[in-house]
Order: sequence, then C-alpha cells, then structure tokens
Amino acid sequence: MGFATNQWYVAAYGEEVGDGLLARTICGEPIVFYRTGAGDPVALADRCVHRRFPLSESVRDGDQIICGYHGFTYAPDGACVAVPGQVRIPRTARVPAYPVVEQDSLVWVWIGDPGKADQAAIPRAPWLAMDGWVTVRGMEPLAARHELLIDNLLDLSHETYLHAGYIGTPEVAQTPITTEVDDEAGVVYVSRRMKDVECPSFYADSTGIKGRIDRWQDIEYHPPCLYLLHSRIAPTGVEPGPDADDPAACHAEIVYAITPETETSTHDFWMVARDFALDDEGVSAFLAESNRTVVLQDVEALNVLEKVIAGEPEGYQELSINIDTGGLAARRLLRRMTGA
Amino acid sequence: MGFATNQWYVAAYGEEVGDGLLARTICGEPIVFYRTGAGDPVALADRCVHRRFPLSESVRDGDQIICGYHGFTYAPDGACVAVPGQVRIPRTARVPAYPVVEQDSLVWVWIGDPGKADQAAIPRAPWLAMDGWVTVRGMEPLAARHELLIDNLLDLSHETYLHAGYIGTPEVAQTPITTEVDDEAGVVYVSRRMKDVECPSFYADSTGIKGRIDRWQDIEYHPPCLYLLHSRIAPTGVEPGPDADDPAACHAEIVYAITPETETSTHDFWMVARDFALDDEGVSAFLAESNRTVVLQDVEALNVLEKVIAGEPEGYQELSINIDTGGLAARRLLRRMTGA
Amino acid sequence: MGFATNQWYVAAYGEEVGDGLLARTICGEPIVFYRTGAGDPVALADRCVHRRFPLSESVRDGDQIICGYHGFTYAPDGACVAVPGQVRIPRTARVPAYPVVEQDSLVWVWIGDPGKADQAAIPRAPWLAMDGWVTVRGMEPLAARHELLIDNLLDLSHETYLHAGYIGTPEVAQTPITTEVDDEAGVVYVSRRMKDVECPSFYADSTGIKGRIDRWQDIEYHPPCLYLLHSRIAPTGVEPGPDADDPAACHAEIVYAITPETETSTHDFWMVARDFALDDEGVSAFLAESNRTVVLQDVEALNVLEKVIAGEPEGYQELSINIDTGGLAARRLLRRMTGA
Repeated sequence: MGFATNQWYVAAYGEEVGDGLLARTICGEPIVFYRTGAGDPVALADRCVHRRFPLSESVRDGDQIICGYHGFTYAPDGACVAVPGQVRIPRTARVPAYPVVEQDSLVWVWIGDPGKADQAAIPRAPWLAMDGWVTVRGMEPLAARHELLIDNLLDLSHETYLHAGYIGTPEVAQTPITTEVDDEAGVVYVSRRMKDVECPSFYADSTGIKGRIDRWQDIEYHPPCLYLLHSRIAPTGVEPGPDADDPAACHAEIVYAITPETETSTHDFWMVARDFALDDEGVSAFLAESNRTVVLQDVEALNVLEKVIAGEPEGYQELSINIDTGGLAARRLLRRMTGA
Repeated sequence: MGFATNQWYVAAYGEEVGDGLLARTICGEPIVFYRTGAGDPVALADRCVHRRFPLSESVRDGDQIICGYHGFTYAPDGACVAVPGQVRIPRTARVPAYPVVEQDSLVWVWIGDPGKADQAAIPRAPWLAMDGWVTVRGMEPLAARHELLIDNLLDLSHETYLHAGYIGTPEVAQTPITTEVDDEAGVVYVSRRMKDVECPSFYADSTGIKGRIDRWQDIEYHPPCLYLLHSRIAPTGVEPGPDADDPAACHAEIVYAITPETETSTHDFWMVARDFALDDEGVSAFLAESNRTVVLQDVEALNVLEKVIAGEPEGYQELSINIDTGGLAARRLLRRMTGA
Repeated sequence: MGFATNQWYVAAYGEEVGDGLLARTICGEPIVFYRTGAGDPVALADRCVHRRFPLSESVRDGDQIICGYHGFTYAPDGACVAVPGQVRIPRTARVPAYPVVEQDSLVWVWIGDPGKADQAAIPRAPWLAMDGWVTVRGMEPLAARHELLIDNLLDLSHETYLHAGYIGTPEVAQTPITTEVDDEAGVVYVSRRMKDVECPSFYADSTGIKGRIDRWQDIEYHPPCLYLLHSRIAPTGVEPGPDADDPAACHAEIVYAITPETETSTHDFWMVARDFALDDEGVSAFLAESNRTVVLQDVEALNVLEKVIAGEPEGYQELSINIDTGGLAARRLLRRMTGA
C-alpha cells in the first residue's frame, strides 16, 4: 500500500554512523549516511547528480564526498562544490539532503517534504540512553513487507507457537487482550496482563525471579516506525506502588523500529533495555542472544509469508479474530498516513 | 495455456504420504498432504485462513494440524477446531480439502470443483501394484512447463539423438509411427513397431535377450496426467500367442505422471514396471539408474527449452512434421480440457 | 532505447570461431557461430525450426549441424537437409543465416535485413592484424546496457577517479577536451592532449620512457560498435615529424567493440595494440593484466549503475557538463540509428 511519507523513520543506530559511508535504503529511497568531524549525522541522496554513481561507494574527503566515478564533490548540505574539467559549477548541481536527528541513541531520517520536518514529532524511547538502564540490540534484514512485521508485533499470541521455549508459554495465547486506539495522537495500545503464570526462560534466566509470576505486556505502537513493549515481570501478587514505584518487579523495554527498505523488505531494528542486572554481562549476552533468536524466528516466518503473498491471487481474504484487534487498528492508522 | 481443471492428477507416490507434512504445489495450488492414523491420505490447502502461514511448516497433533504461527488447529476435513484467545470459532474458519484417492500405489488429487470428483474417472496403471511385476521409480523436478514434457514423451524419435547409448538407436527415428486418437474417451495412441533391430543397452543388459530383436513402443496418453508406454522386447520373429500369451518376450510398462506444479514447472514422476528378472536386484538397480539418467537428459533439454521460450517474441511459430502427430493430438485434447 | 539495426557488430574474435559451436546473443538475437572446413565463419539463428532446441547445444557433422533433440540437420546456409522419420523435407525448414565477415581479426555479424549488408561499411581497426604491431585482448561480460559503456569510454576524465594508479592521473580530469562530430560519416571525435604531465604506470612500465611526457588521447567512435583510442606517449616537447613520422613516441591503439547482448547486458571486447616492445612478452603480459584490471573496474562500476537505473523512477534526469560533450554526441548518433 505504499509508504507513509512526511514521517520520521529510524535509519540507523547512532554508532553505525561514523567516519565511513553507510548506504541504506529507506522507503525505497537510497541514502548515504555519515558523520561530520563536528559529530553531526548527515543524510544525502545516494546518487551523484552527474551519472547517478552511488556516493556511498565513493570517497570521503573531510566532511565532503568525492564521487568515485568522475569526481563530483559534495558538501554535507548536498551542494556540489567541485566538478572535473571546468571551474564553473552548474547551479543545479546538488543532491537532496534529508533532515536527520539523533535522539535516544537512534538516527532518525525524515522521508517526505523537508520543509515539514518537525523534530518534536519524533516519538521517544528514552530508556535507550538513560541512566539506570542497559540495552542490547541488533538489526536483522527482513525480506518481507513492513506490514507483516507490524502484524506480527501487534499480536503477541504467536509467542506461544513460534517462540515456544523462549518467550512463549501457553498462557500468552490464552490470555485475552485489551486494545485502545488514540486516533488523535495516532497510537495503538494493546495490553495483556497475565496473573500467576509460568515464567518463560527469557526472564527466568535473566531476572533471578523464582516461581510463578505476574507478567504484563503493554504495547504502544507509534506508526509508522516505533513499537514499544513495556514488559513487567514480578513475583505473582506483587503490585506496583504509588508513583510507579515498583522495586520488586523487573522491567524490560522492548523497542522495535520497523523501517521499510523497499515495498517488500524491511529493516528490523530490535532493542532490549532493562532495569535489572545492570552490571551483569552474562545477562546482557543471554538477552542479546535470546532476543536475536526470537527475532530470527519471526524473520524466517515472515519471509515465508512474503513468498506466499507474492504467489497468491489478487483479492485474497484473511480471516481475523479478537487477537487481531490491535493489528487491524494499526493497519487503519497506517492507511490513513499513506492516503491509501 | 493454463491448467486443465476438474481433473485428477498424481500428487505423490503412496510412500511419500505418511506421518510428516508433505508440501506440494499442484496446478499452482499449494497443498499439504499427510496420512491419518487410520491410513487415509489427506490433502488440504496449505494456507492457514488466519494469516496464510503454510500448514506444511506447522505441527501435527494426531490427525490434526496446529498452525505454527498462531495455533489455529485443523481437522482432516479442513475444519478449524481451535483458535487462540477465544472459545468461539468463526463459522468460515475452514481450509479447502481436496478429494484424494490412493490407487495403483499413486496418490491422486482432484483439482477443480470437489463436487464433480469421480474416482472411476482415474485412469489405471495396474502393473505398479500387481503380482508378477516389479517397479522402480522416482520423481524429478522439471523447471519447464508440462506441455514440453508431453511433447517430449509423445514423440520418441528423440531417443535416437538425446538418449543415444541408453534407449536410443538409429532405428527409432527411422521407423514410422501410427497415431490414433479416441476423441470420445480422450486418449491418444502412438505406436512404433520395429522389426529385426539392434537392442539398446537398457534392454540388452536387463532382459538377457541376445541378438537382434523386435521392439514395440505402444503409447497411451490419458490427458492430462497419465502416460503409459507399453514396451515389448522379443527375439526377432517371435510373435505373441493367442490371448496375449507371450512368454518369450519381455515387457516393460513405462509410466509417467505429468503433473503441473506451476505454469512453468512440472513434477516429472517416472516408473518402470517389468515382468522379467523379478527377483534380480541388480536389474532393478540398473533400470532405476538408467531410466533416471534418461529422465535427467530430458529434464536438462526441456529446462533449456523453457528458457528459450521465456526469451522469445510472442507468436513464435514451430514447424511440425509426421513424428509430431501424436504430440499435436495431445495438445488438441489438452486445449479442449482447459477451454483455451 | 532498443538496438541500432541494419548494422555490423563484432560478434567474436577470429580465434573464438572454430570447430566448436559458439553460442552468443547479439542485440537480443541468439546466434550460433562456427567455422567450415574451408575456413569460413558461419552464423545461424540458434534455434531449431522444429521445437526451438539450441543448435549450439547440438552436434557438428562436417560442415552441418545435427539438432541434439530430434536430429533436424542444417547446412551452413541455414537450409534443413534432413529430418527424422520421413524423406520429404518441408519447404520452410530453414534457419536464418546471418551475413558474417572476418576482418582485422574480428568476426563481424550483420543485425538486420541481410539484403542491406555491405561489407564496405565495416569500420577498420587495421593495427590488430598488421606487421609492426602486437595486440593483447580479452572480453568481459558486462551486466549493464551498452549505452553506459559508451558514456564511460567517451569521457576519459573518469580515469582520474576510477582508475587512479593504473591509467589515471590528476591531469586527465583537469585537461579540457575538444569534441568534433562528423554527422555525415557518423563519427564522434574527442581529443585530450596533455603536455608535460606525469606518466601513469600503465605506460611508464611498458614504454621505457622516463620522466615527464606529452600524452595524447584521440578518440574515434564509430557507432554503434567500434571505439578507437589513439594513444600517443612521448618525452615532453617531442613533436611528430612530417608524414606522421614519430620515432621517439610510443603509440597504443586501444580498441573496444561495444556489442549489445541484451537490452541490459553487453559484450565488452577490449584490445591493446602497440608499436613498441614488440618482442617483449613481459610487456604483453603487463599490458594484458593492467588493461583487464582497468576494464574490470569499469565493469564493476557500470554494473552498479545498471542496478541503480533498474530501481529508479521513470524520467530520472542526469546533469551533464563539458566533459560529457562526446558522450552526448554519441547518444544523438545512436538515437538516429535506432529511430528512437
């Protein structure tokens, strides 16, 4: 259904943008990312204006890029500052520069009309760069349209089947959800609160909490790109105190950035921030490895679905049930953003 | 030219359908096959009604399949019997079940309107499961449209060129054929009877017959799927007795099932049943290896032709001669079946 | 923009056409090449008239080809002289034969109406088969449209960036060019004459000339196929004598044949003929290796550009500057030839 434009998308983790030239296609637009000597991230269209050679396969010269084919040279604002064989630089020699913002350790890029870019509209994920929290993260390329990943993340009942043994237990699929949509703010909330349930190995082996637990999964989806899963694990029966004081519980903020690469491929950024076992590198390694395994299980399943869709007749009809309420709301908000 | 629908197709050998989940696309339709505890073959559409996940990549639970993504559970008749997160099962939650029949050691599936499926219409290949006969067989995936395999098998003069040294001798291409078409029954007969000819190694090394032979190739093609080659090898001059009594000859029933996978790929099932050297495993191994080699020679040539067709301008015209009479008749019957 | 037809194209080096059957697609037309016992090159459409099997995957029998599928047999003029199973040969059984000429060690084929083929129109590259010259050469398959290679070769300022360290020096991009177009003859001339410049390793290590040089690059492009680069390397200040007598200079004739394979792939034939170090096999090996390296740098860059073009929106606009004058003239002549 096309891309939601005039929107911010996560393009990279801050540490991916540095001295080198990072090529990444966002919503079908090839972009080269780098960081100036002063530390500012830069995002330019990844095509020389002359003969379309990718700037990402070219050479940095200070804060400028020299095209690897004929030497057209670009400044961080996209202006061409040198061409071969002549002194005069054509007035139109300029590549588009994308608005880019680094916030919460993420590099966000604006896809759409640069004049409409408003940094204040970028949703926050503060735990990624906040004292008292530690984050592990990665990015897996997904050979499937971003809508399939949104579907996947908005309905966690699949944890029971696709991720059994990791984060899935029978109770996830059995516990009903509540869904709310804030149409004005454009946010979908899906909540599943399980009481007195089995603790999956993902948390049993990382939190140190023994025995039966209360497990909360509170999802916030800020279309098009940012997905937050507030995960609370506590010994069963323990409630948070007033003012969100909740010392006996462990909290994980599972963050996904769902960034379309093309119509049928997606950058699947995943992050796990936690407020427990902060100094325990074994827990970091375990959560990184476990979450990556879970993400790869999703990737494998969604890549299969993409192939199924590619081969199916037009007008194929899905059947939806209660668990899909959040996903259907997300689709509706996305359609509104794309004008589709 | 599309697929002939409301027709039976060989989907698998009986031994391929068992405890596991066998995915096979027939005439463009993805189907999952398995066998119930009671021994009955089952054929269901290979797509969960919920989010189209392939049932063939899911889990068997007794005679049921539990979808590997969200746990929708299906009975052998295609009815959904459980969904996650709720007790009520939607009325329309059902995957199509295909009529399926196991006969002559083959699993046949009906592609079309299930109400029109008539088991009596399935053509027979009794030697595959009959006392006094032994069969070797296999299946090779063909990256070419089924029409090319039909062409190939209806005109055996190509044995002389493509299969020289195996089943081809100069006399095959030189000997004229007779062709008959039973329009009412929808069967094509092509017969080539060679007298006093060289015995190809395929038969010389398996039958034990020495010297010059009479060699009969009597083809029956039952469109769309079943191809029978009645092959008779006898010392030259020996005729069959009355009542088909023919003790001095060796008979091989070469059976092909030509099952379209997609518009441009085919399941090439091949079988060689014989009434000689029944207990000789060396002969079985020799015939299996030799026939597979011959089939792979065809596969290689037809895969080349498919690529040629993909690159050629529309309206390309072939030139046909006498040897093509059977193939042209087969095309005519197939066109009638597809309404093309 | 399609192919220029009614034109001669280089199909192969003379030594590539021999006893075997050489398959090569020229301007989208699959052609089989071979040489008769009398030494004449033959070019036939690479498709049997019967069931389109490639003649190049068939068998030679003297000067004839026997189709590997059903034995249709063709003479060097394309006439079918034998078919299986019958004596009468259909009147229309004939594959197209292409006009073919061997000249200057190159095998040229005529794409278009055979009646219009005029050998005299083939442009010459005499150094490839002339006393006093030695040639090294090769062919690299290019996964990019031929227009990109024409662009590349008509503007050598890219040597400075893409081929730095081989044939590129800063002065190439800095030195202005002169461009002339002979519209009547259909030839583009681009000339760059550098005085008192650095000698790139390509020539420093092969000519034996020490120190600063004068370097001439005089291009002649004969659309659609033949590109000549007359390269003169001399100690700086030394001018050619009258009557083109130029003993103190070294001359290299760099010849490219730019032959479209398909709309998006090209046969990139490259040749380096020289009038110096004629007996020095070390120089031959060095120039062959160096020029191949340079060609592969171009191939890599142009393959990238082809992928860029495949993904870009229609109507994408390039920006051209002075260095592109030759390339733009070449495009204009090519468009005139294709009627586009």
